Amino acid sequence: MAGKRLGKQTIKLQNPPSIVSTAVIAGPKEGEGPLRLYFDAIIDDEMWGEKSWERAESKLVRETFGRILNKAGKAPSEINYIIAGDLLNQCIASTFGLRESEIPFFGVFGACSTMAESLSLGAMLIDGGFADNVVAITSSHFCSAERQFRFPLELGTQRTPTSQWTVTASGGALLSSEGSGPYITHVTTGKIVDMGIKDANNMGAAMAPAAADTIYAHFQDTGYAPERYDLIVTGDLGAVGKSICEDLLKREGYYMGGVYNDCGIMIFDRRKQDVHAGGSGCGCSASVFSGYIYQEMKKGNLNKVLFVATGALLSPASSQQGESIPGIAHAVAVSRTLS
Amino acid sequence: MAGKRLGKQTIKLQNPPSIVSTAVIAGPKEGEGPLRLYFDAIIDDEMWGEKSWERAESKLVRETFGRILNKAGKAPSEINYIIAGDLLNQCIASTFGLRESEIPFFGVFGACSTMAESLSLGAMLIDGGFADNVVAITSSHFCSAERQFRFPLELGTQRTPTSQWTVTASGGALLSSEGSGPYITHVTTGKIVDMGIKDANNMGAAMAPAAADTIYAHFQDTGYAPERYDLIVTGDLGAVGKSICEDLLKREGYYMGGVYNDCGIMIFDRRKQDVHAGGSGCGCSASVFSGYIYQEMKKGNLNKVLFVATGALLSPASSQQGESIPGIAHAVAVSRTLS
Repeated sequence: MAGKRLGKQTIKLQNPPSIVSTAVIAGPKEGEGPLRLYFDAIIDDEMWGEKSWERAESKLVRETFGRILNKAGKAPSEINYIIAGDLLNQCIASTFGLRESEIPFFGVFGACSTMAESLSLGAMLIDGGFADNVVAITSSHFCSAERQFRFPLELGTQRTPTSQWTVTASGGALLSSEGSGPYITHVTTGKIVDMGIKDANNMGAAMAPAAADTIYAHFQDTGYAPERYDLIVTGDLGAVGKSICEDLLKREGYYMGGVYNDCGIMIFDRRKQDVHAGGSGCGCSASVFSGYIYQEMKKGNLNKVLFVATGALLSPASSQQGESIPGIAHAVAVSRTLS
Repeated sequence: MAGKRLGKQTIKLQNPPSIVSTAVIAGPKEGEGPLRLYFDAIIDDEMWGEKSWERAESKLVRETFGRILNKAGKAPSEINYIIAGDLLNQCIASTFGLRESEIPFFGVFGACSTMAESLSLGAMLIDGGFADNVVAITSSHFCSAERQFRFPLELGTQRTPTSQWTVTASGGALLSSEGSGPYITHVTTGKIVDMGIKDANNMGAAMAPAAADTIYAHFQDTGYAPERYDLIVTGDLGAVGKSICEDLLKREGYYMGGVYNDCGIMIFDRRKQDVHAGGSGCGCSASVFSGYIYQEMKKGNLNKVLFVATGALLSPASSQQGESIPGIAHAVAVSRTLS
C-alpha cells in the first residue's frame, strides 16, 4: 500500500513526489504585474501570432509544456501521464495544445481548482507506483474566457467592483518519483460546496466557502494548524472572497493571520492594474504556484506551503437557468525538505 | 508499490478492485432499444419534471448515484471519492447532480471516453491504497447535447447518414477494495490522436484511430490477443467508426473478428430507431458498461471484457475555427474472476 488516509479527505503520501521543474508563460498584463520576474516568458499580445484567442491559449499550453520538459532534461517518452484541463468548453486549450505529445492523457475539469486537482492526482499516481513522471498543467486566457463566460470584448461592458480578471497564462509542473524536492506531502481533496451565491460577477464569494471547507478539513485530518505553514495560498478568491474565507475559518477557531494570501491578489497590483477584486482563471493559481511559490521554495525562502486552488463550477447555461454557483477547492501541501 | 507498469500505457493492478454495484437510468428512446431490460429505470420524457434539459441531466446523475449506493448498501460517508464528468460545458451535469453528495470530488473531462477514464483513475486510487470505495459516473442527454453542439432542436435539422444520436442516460459504478468481482485487472490509458478529420457529423471516423491506437497499445503492452476476451467493446464509434477501427487493427495484424462490438451500435436498433450510425455521448458507453456488460458478467455469460470508451475532443468553437477533431480512448480490462 502506498497512500495513508488521514481523516475523511486527506492522503499523507508515503513516497512524496518531487516537483522537478515548472514553467509559466504569461500574458502582457500579467507581465506588468508584481510576479513578472517569476515567469519564463511574457507574450507581447493576447493573440501571440495565432488566428484566434483559443488557438493562442493552446499555444500557451504547448509551449509551457515544452519548457517544463526542457528544464528537467526529459524527453516526452519519459513522461507517463499528462493531467490537464482548462476553462474552455470541452477543455480545448489543453487537448489541442497537447495533441502532439504522444503521452497518455487524463483530462480533468475543476475550473480554477484544476492545478491542485492535477497535482493531487499526479502525486497519487506516483506515490502508488503507477508512474515515475507526470506533468500537471493548465491555462486560462482573458479574451477566450470573457467571450465564453461573459460578454463580447468589443462591447466594452462595465465591470462590477467584485468581478475578477481572468489571467492569461499557462503554468505547469513535472512531478517525479526521483528528485530533491520540493515534495508534495499531503493531498486534501475538496467536496462540492454550494452556499447559494448566484452572482457570476462575484465568484470569490461563491468559492470562499469551498476554500474554507477544504482548509478546515486539512487541519482536522492532519492535526496541523495554520502556523505549520509559511504560506497558505488560495487559488483565486480575490479580495472579496479572501476576507470571507478568513472569516469562515475564524468561526471554526483557525486564525490565518499573516501566513494567508490569495493567488488572485498576488498576481496583479490592484491599485494600478484595474482588475477590481483580483485575478482568476486556471492560469492564475497555476502561474503563481509554478512561478513564485516554486522558485521561492527552491531558494529556501518558503519551507512549507499549502496550495489551495479554488474553482467556481458554473457555466453560462447554469447561470442563465437561475442556478447558484457551486465551488470546489483542492489542497496540496508542499515541503522544501522531508525533514 | 501497488501498480505494475506494462509497456508504455498499461498498468496491471496488483490488488484489482471489484465492481460491487452499478446503475443506469436511461431516456425514453433508449428504453425502446435492445438493452432496455438492463436499465434500472427508464424516464418517460426527456424533461423528467425539470425546467430544462440540463437540469434533467443533472437529475439523471443524482438519481443514478443514489441507486448505485443503495444497491451496494453503502452510505455516502463510506465513499472516498467520486470521479465524474460529462459533455456539457463546464461539466455541469455532474457537478450540479452531485453537489449535495458531501464526498471528495474529482471532475474529469474525456468527452465520451469519460466512463473508462473515471474507472481507470478510480481503480488506481483503490489499488494504491488511497481509497476503499470510489464511484465513477457520467451522463449525456440528447437534447442538452444537441443544442450545445449542433442546432436548436426546434429547427428540425436533417441529420447526415454518418451522424450519431447522443444517448440520454446516466450510468455509473462503485469500485471497492473488497468484493467478489467482476474485477478491473488492467488500465490502458490513451493518448490524444488527431488524424485530421474535420466533420463534426462523422465523429466515429474521428475517434476510430484513437480506439485502434489504445487497443493496439493494450495488446502490445500485455502480450494479449483479441482471443483473450469474450468481448472487446469500443465506446461509441458507431457503424462507420467501428469498421475503420477494425481495418486499422487488421493492418497491425490483429483480427478482431466476432469478439468486437461497439456500444453505439449495441444500444439502439439501427434498423428501427432512426439513429443513423448509432449512439454516442458519455452516457452511451456508461450505460452499456453499467447495464449490459456488468449484468452479463455477474451472470457468468461474459468472463473477460476489454472496455474501450472513446471520446471526440471537439467543441463548437474548435469546429467553427476550422480545427480537426482529436480523439482519445481509454481501456479497462475487466475479469469475472481472478483465476
